[in-house]
Amino acid sequence: MTDKIDPKLDLFIERTVSAPPERVWAAWTKPEHVKRWFTPAPWTTPECEIDLRPGGQFRTVMRGPEGEQSGVNACYLEVVENQRLVWTLALEPGFRPSPATAPTHEESQEVPVFTAVITFEKHGTGTRYHALAKHRDEAGCKRHAEMGFHEGWGAATDQLVAFVAELAQR
Amino acid sequence: MTDKIDPKLDLFIERTVSAPPERVWAAWTKPEHVKRWFTPAPWTTPECEIDLRPGGQFRTVMRGPEGEQSGVNACYLEVVENQRLVWTLALEPGFRPSPATAPTHEESQEVPVFTAVITFEKHGTGTRYHALAKHRDEAGCKRHAEMGFHEGWGAATDQLVAFVAELAQR
Repeated sequence: MTDKIDPKLDLFIERTVSAPPERVWAAWTKPEHVKRWFTPAPWTTPECEIDLRPGGQFRTVMRGPEGEQSGVNACYLEVVENQRLVWTLALEPGFRPSPATAPTHEESQEVPVFTAVITFEKHGTGTRYHALAKHRDEAGCKRHAEMGFHEGWGAATDQLVAFVAELAQR
Repeated sequence: MTDKIDPKLDLFIERTVSAPPERVWAAWTKPEHVKRWFTPAPWTTPECEIDLRPGGQFRTVMRGPEGEQSGVNACYLEVVENQRLVWTLALEPGFRPSPATAPTHEESQEVPVFTAVITFEKHGTGTRYHALAKHRDEAGCKRHAEMGFHEGWGAATDQLVAFVAELAQR
């Protein structure tokens, strides 16, 4: 289920969540849910569009406290309900190669192009959650790590866990 | 079934083949078949590897009469038997962003990065065959056209049609 990790090219986050895979899956695949946890505070996610099928769009707008704006315009590659979600920055929706696929420049402020493989595995009454970012090359992987991948995805995952707990109480 | 075409970004070949979709599909998905038609003569296709699933590898080696070598190392995105086959140069097998995703340089001799969408549609007793190349940008599309997309894919498609006719007589 989980992809083999190449330590020179991949970065990942693993977490055990005390909610079933269905609920963690929902947090990742419903726009109104994604807006609640996707971007580490004090940044927010005011917009999210999801067309949940291979070739479909995964788009978010992320906004900083000073009005800074960033975003994701990705293409879904695999959608296996409650189990596995794969999307990439290397393609636009409709599988067209993305303009964002320029090579890694040391000086670039942009997040290096990666493919995300998110897996949701049943673990007792909870979920073994795994988020993997696969980069093109070592330079891209290293730069993403230096830009704070673990801090950023770690904080977003904390928000995801808290949001999923809240979902359970509704 | 057939994707909407953007004339500024896409190049395509259309053909009616007098063989059912199953046979044209086989020509595209069995390595021993692909080797017979994929590269316009006098070039040949001495090697072909196929792992026919989303995320799987589509690799060919193409060889010229003087021993020149070229190749494709693509990743399948959609595999709908006898109907639709999508692969991209923007990703390596396993969905990792490809080193080949560098932007379009006017002077580059390499084929610009594209995603191929091949569709096989039942048409009477034959097949309406459609091969679409989706490029990242206008420059890449234009350059691919100037490099002889229509001549090259046209000649390969002629070889495909001849090979499929031969398959029918076995």
